[in-house]
Amino acid sequence: MNVKSASTSSDPRTAREVRLVVRSRDLPTTADFRIAEVSLPEPASGQVLVRNHWFAARAVMRALMGEGELPMPRYRPGAALWGPAVGRVVRRGDADGPVPGTWVLHGLGWRDFALVPTGQLEQIAPADVEVAADEDAVTDGPRQDADARDRLLAHLAQGETAYAGLMGAARLRPGDTVFVSSAAGSVGSMAGQIARLKGAGRVIGSAGGPAKVAWLLDELGYDAAFDHRERPVVEQLRRAAPEGIDVYFDNVGGEQLRAALELARPGARFALCGVLGQQGGGELPGLELDTFVVIAKSLRLQGFTARDYPDLSPQYEKELAQWLAESRLVIPAVRYRGLDAAPEALLALLGGRHTGNVIVEL
Amino acid sequence: MNVKSASTSSDPRTAREVRLVVRSRDLPTTADFRIAEVSLPEPASGQVLVRNHWFAARAVMRALMGEGELPMPRYRPGAALWGPAVGRVVRRGDADGPVPGTWVLHGLGWRDFALVPTGQLEQIAPADVEVAADEDAVTDGPRQDADARDRLLAHLAQGETAYAGLMGAARLRPGDTVFVSSAAGSVGSMAGQIARLKGAGRVIGSAGGPAKVAWLLDELGYDAAFDHRERPVVEQLRRAAPEGIDVYFDNVGGEQLRAALELARPGARFALCGVLGQQGGGELPGLELDTFVVIAKSLRLQGFTARDYPDLSPQYEKELAQWLAESRLVIPAVRYRGLDAAPEALLALLGGRHTGNVIVEL
Repeated sequence: MNVKSASTSSDPRTAREVRLVVRSRDLPTTADFRIAEVSLPEPASGQVLVRNHWFAARAVMRALMGEGELPMPRYRPGAALWGPAVGRVVRRGDADGPVPGTWVLHGLGWRDFALVPTGQLEQIAPADVEVAADEDAVTDGPRQDADARDRLLAHLAQGETAYAGLMGAARLRPGDTVFVSSAAGSVGSMAGQIARLKGAGRVIGSAGGPAKVAWLLDELGYDAAFDHRERPVVEQLRRAAPEGIDVYFDNVGGEQLRAALELARPGARFALCGVLGQQGGGELPGLELDTFVVIAKSLRLQGFTARDYPDLSPQYEKELAQWLAESRLVIPAVRYRGLDAAPEALLALLGGRHTGNVIVEL
Repeated sequence: MNVKSASTSSDPRTAREVRLVVRSRDLPTTADFRIAEVSLPEPASGQVLVRNHWFAARAVMRALMGEGELPMPRYRPGAALWGPAVGRVVRRGDADGPVPGTWVLHGLGWRDFALVPTGQLEQIAPADVEVAADEDAVTDGPRQDADARDRLLAHLAQGETAYAGLMGAARLRPGDTVFVSSAAGSVGSMAGQIARLKGAGRVIGSAGGPAKVAWLLDELGYDAAFDHRERPVVEQLRRAAPEGIDVYFDNVGGEQLRAALELARPGARFALCGVLGQQGGGELPGLELDTFVVIAKSLRLQGFTARDYPDLSPQYEKELAQWLAESRLVIPAVRYRGLDAAPEALLALLGGRHTGNVIVEL
């Protein structure tokens, strides 16, 4: 366990959290965040106190920090950020809550201790599961420790979102030509792999920069990949998919969505997952959508989150376990150490400096 | 039969057709059309010669006449228009084609005689069905004649499109709040009625002008209706649906689609059917779509045509017959007489001068 790496967190009377200082119109900087110390809260009835071990930086956080109207709660200046986290129960407010030590997934990351309503957490591993102290130790430690951590960390990866988008929103069919934008990102890196595993005929990815493009082709098994900064996306997509695309997994909006609309075959399905390159919540211009084309080609644009397809969740868990066991799927992740590194982790994600998931480890 | 009303059509050696003169960027005028006389063609093997009795003017024709790129064939200057028509077989090229007199639905309207490949027509009534000579005669004639005509004309109404949009594209659920734009039009007038018949909780329509709004409320049974020209659509829609909408049946695009996106409840389904108010094929600006909202509310935008849901067709035919028999559905239509009146019929439709279907009767 890494409790030693965050000194104040081992103090049972205080906790630390990452707060937003101001709303940001542009890409945020480290000055937009502040680490604050608070009294360690005590769980009331219906709550547990959780010691967070990992939480994830996500692209949607930029929109939640921004200005303008959003159809969901935003981060508030002066208050802590939130986001998906995996941790262990420390204390419970009721005798029938999860026992201390239980591993749980919940939505109150960006702090080392979280007071979580028991209705808003998912128990993902029993109290007797232990993981090794750090990555170096794991390499020499018992193999089951590394496995346990991988299984726990898989809950922060966005494979379930990718699976929901492909199988639920886009209804992927065997043989489909699939285009994934931001294909080296946390969702995209899973979407491309899952599309292939579920029988796509051709998988095409876009990413920012030649290193990511090479990674898509060499490590993730994409059939074609291109650098969206290099030339107009529509040209590059047409070359990669001369006969058009059946499914578009959209993580960015904007120019790439426009190109996908142009290359869409009749009946194509678009899973709209993110707006990295477009909007960030009412600040950048949206997409100029020609609904005539949507009608003439009978296209479907389906906005979604993983929560929209709860029925797919057990199927995903089962397939994920099998793919991991057979080494047919990788969950690429970069880890930052300690709460103080959390703002930097988010900025690195938003700046596109990493492939796969960006995780903060406490 | 009305053969006498179109004099040249009774001449077995010539036929007449409505041709496009030039592509039109603005709303077309009668000068954009020309009636041409051609030799009466003879059916070759695999073809039948059909005497058209009715054909329909449709809003999509404006786009097909326009400039710019379209993902479907356009009308060509100097050539005849086309569109859905009901007629009777005159001669067949093969002994196994439909017998002369058979009533057929096909896609070659805008002419009095059409050479139709047998694979591109639908037999809708046998040769022994006769209809009365004209509307006045029908009033005094045997009741079955009028019924026969209603059943034949129902094939030109856009009920099947409305049904496909509601049940297929939008997956209407009992209790849904449904908003229909261009609700007094040929598709909209059916969509509102069918939504109600299929269990919608609340049906809201928009139309151009107070007379149409009154007609929606008084004749078609809408719960709420408004004049989209009167005040901003979003304001009027919010007043009509303070708790938001679950289904939007879009016949126009533009401002009304934008308002529907704003009022959409989470999980709302949009059936995109037409672009009357928006685009006409690349000429007017499209919709500024904020995909972040589409994702955050898990909205579905489904472009469609009736052809996309062939499985729904028998169910529609069955329900339509029952609704008509029980007088629970009306098929509003205006008829223009003779091929020479056809351009005027189309212009009247595009100008929004009528409610319901606009039919040319030969």
